[in-house]
Amino acid sequence: MVSYVVYGRGSFNQLDEILAPNRKAGAPVIFLLDHFFSAGSGGENKPLVNRIPLRGNDKIIFADVTCEPKTTYVDALAQQLKDEFGTISGIIGIGGGSVMDLAKAVSLMMNNPGSSAGYQGWDLVKNPGVYKAGIPTLSGTGAEVSRTCVLTGPTKKLGMNSDFTPFDQIVLDPELIAGAPANQRFYTGMDCYIHCIESLEGTYLNEFSKSYGEKALELCQHVFLEKNEWNEECDDKLMMASYAGGMSIAYSQVGVAHAVSYGLSYLLGTKHGIGNCIVMNHLEEYYPEGVAEFKRMVEKNKIDIPTGICKNLNDEQFETMINVSMGMKPLWENALGKDWEKIMTREKLRSLFEKF
Amino acid sequence: MVSYVVYGRGSFNQLDEILAPNRKAGAPVIFLLDHFFSAGSGGENKPLVNRIPLRGNDKIIFADVTCEPKTTYVDALAQQLKDEFGTISGIIGIGGGSVMDLAKAVSLMMNNPGSSAGYQGWDLVKNPGVYKAGIPTLSGTGAEVSRTCVLTGPTKKLGMNSDFTPFDQIVLDPELIAGAPANQRFYTGMDCYIHCIESLEGTYLNEFSKSYGEKALELCQHVFLEKNEWNEECDDKLMMASYAGGMSIAYSQVGVAHAVSYGLSYLLGTKHGIGNCIVMNHLEEYYPEGVAEFKRMVEKNKIDIPTGICKNLNDEQFETMINVSMGMKPLWENALGKDWEKIMTREKLRSLFEKF
Repeated sequence: MVSYVVYGRGSFNQLDEILAPNRKAGAPVIFLLDHFFSAGSGGENKPLVNRIPLRGNDKIIFADVTCEPKTTYVDALAQQLKDEFGTISGIIGIGGGSVMDLAKAVSLMMNNPGSSAGYQGWDLVKNPGVYKAGIPTLSGTGAEVSRTCVLTGPTKKLGMNSDFTPFDQIVLDPELIAGAPANQRFYTGMDCYIHCIESLEGTYLNEFSKSYGEKALELCQHVFLEKNEWNEECDDKLMMASYAGGMSIAYSQVGVAHAVSYGLSYLLGTKHGIGNCIVMNHLEEYYPEGVAEFKRMVEKNKIDIPTGICKNLNDEQFETMINVSMGMKPLWENALGKDWEKIMTREKLRSLFEKF
Repeated sequence: MVSYVVYGRGSFNQLDEILAPNRKAGAPVIFLLDHFFSAGSGGENKPLVNRIPLRGNDKIIFADVTCEPKTTYVDALAQQLKDEFGTISGIIGIGGGSVMDLAKAVSLMMNNPGSSAGYQGWDLVKNPGVYKAGIPTLSGTGAEVSRTCVLTGPTKKLGMNSDFTPFDQIVLDPELIAGAPANQRFYTGMDCYIHCIESLEGTYLNEFSKSYGEKALELCQHVFLEKNEWNEECDDKLMMASYAGGMSIAYSQVGVAHAVSYGLSYLLGTKHGIGNCIVMNHLEEYYPEGVAEFKRMVEKNKIDIPTGICKNLNDEQFETMINVSMGMKPLWENALGKDWEKIMTREKLRSLFEKF
C-alpha cells in the first residue's frame, strides 16, 4: 500500500516540504504533468504549473495522454531521463489516471532493465523503482492507490502489477480536481462507480473490499445523484470515493464492463473512463440495478455517452477486441464464476460489441 | 501508513512466507504474544502458540499486559533483546492493543538510544525501528494501523507518535478474534465505536476521516445492535471496523471519553477499553445520541459496566486524574472547540469523575 498519504484542501502546498527528505544531491525531481496543464492546452489559465516547487535541476515534463500510456512511451521517457541525468531523485505524477500510471511505470523502469512490455503481468518487476509520488487532478480511477499501472503493449493491455508499483506518497488535494471539465469528471468518476458495482456484485469479495466498495459507492451516489449542484463537498467526496474504490480492488476484481472496455481501448484507443461508460450502458443483463442507476446518473448530469463507435468495424477488428477482452480471465471469473466461458461465448461478446 | 496489509480468514498461515524476505542471517524474529495465549493462562487450550512459524533462534516472549504498556517495560524488553541477540530481524506483536503498542515501541527502542519515556510526544523518534508486524487477536483499538503506541511513562500517558511508529506489515485474520471473551470483545469493540462518535462529532474532521469513521460506525452498529447472535460475519466486520476506525483517527482526534478515561487509567490502571465504557456511560451532555446508542449496545449485549470505581478516592487522587485528563489539550479542543477550558472546568471534571 501507499506508505504516505496526505489528504486535504491546499495540501499541494506541502509538496516542497514532502519532497525535501527524498532529494539526492545532483539528482533532479521530475514532475510529470498532464499536458492539459501546458500552455498549448490553455495551461496559461491554469496556474498549477507555477505552483510546482522546482529546485536545482528539477524538470517538468508534460505527458501526452491523448492516448493511454503505451509501453513504448514509458520506455522512451525512462531512456530520456537516464540519458539526461543518469539517475533522478524521484518522479511526481500530476494528472489523471494515465499520468499516475505513467509515473509509476517510469519510476520502475529507471531501475529495471529492458522494456516495460517485459513486465506486464504479475510480480515480474524485480527491483524497486525510484521514489514516486502521485497527485491526482481527476478522481475516479483509483490509480493513486493501486498496485498496478495499466499499459498498452505490443501484445496486450495489462499493468505492471507488483509490490514495487504503488506510489511511496500520494497528495490528495480536492482543490486540484475542481477545474476538471464536467464530462471528463463524470467519465472518470464512473470508473469508480463501475469498479464498485463490479466488485460488490462479483464472486471475489471479502469484508475488506466490501467495506471500501460500499463507502465508495455511497460517495458516488451522493455526488452524482443526490446533489443538485457541484460544489467543494463534491470534490472532497469524489476524491475519497476514488481512493476507497481503488482500495476495494485490492481484494476483489473488476468485471464485465472493464473486460469489454479493454477490448475497445486496445483496438480503438477509447479512453478508459468513457469506454467503461459506453460498455456499462449495455450491461443490463449482468448488472441490472447498477446499470439502471448508472443511466439515472447519466441523465441527471446531462452527459452524452457516444454511440456507434463499432458500426464500421470489420470481422478482423471484432476478433481483435474479442481476443483482448476474453484474455481478461480473472475479470470474467469474478463476474460470472468459474464457468464463465459457458456464459460469455465469443458470439455473445461479438453481439455486445456490435451494440456500441 | 502500514505498507503491507493482508486481510482474510486463515491469512495467519501466510506468516512464515511473509517473514522470509525480512529475516537477516543470525538475527531472530521475536514473537511478542499476549500472555492470554500462554499455558499458565489456559493457553494449552489455545493452539495459536503452536502455529507460530519459528525458525533458527526465533523466540516467543509472552507479554504481560495485566497493566497497559509502561515505558519501563518497553525499555526492559528492548534491553533484554539487545543483551541476548545484539540485534533482531524483527518483532511480531500478536494480541490486543497493548501488545500492538508494546511491539511497536520495542521495535523503535532497538534502534533509538535512551528510554522510551524520552520519545513520548510527537515526532521525537529519530531512527526507524527494526521490522515490525502486528497481528490482532482483539479488534477495536485501531492500534494495528495507528501512528502511535500509547505508553504510561513516569510523568504521562502518551504515545511515541512518529512516521516510524506504524507497523511495516499487518495480518488481519478474523479467525484470530473469534475466541475472545465476550466482555473483553465488547470493551475493545467499544473503543472503536467511541472513536467514531468522538471523531464524527468533533471539530477536527475532513472527508478522509469522515468516510472511514462513518464506515467503522456502521460496522459497529451492525455487529453490536443489529445482529442477534455473534458469528463469523461479526468477526469479519469488527476487524474491519477497528481498521477503519484507526484510519479515521489519522485526520481527526478522539474526544471527551478518551481524555477522561486517560485520567482513570493513569491513576487506577483501568484498562483502556473498559475505562472508555465507564466514562461514555456518563457523557450524555456531550454526545447525547452516541451515549443513548452505547447504552442500547450495553443492554443488548448484556455487558456489565463497572460502577463505584472512584468512590473511595481522596482529593489528591482526583487532582492527579484531573491533571492528566486536562493535559490532553487536542482531545478537548476537538470535542469542545478552542474555548474548551471555559466549558470543561476543573470543577466540572471533578464532578464527572465522582460519578464513576
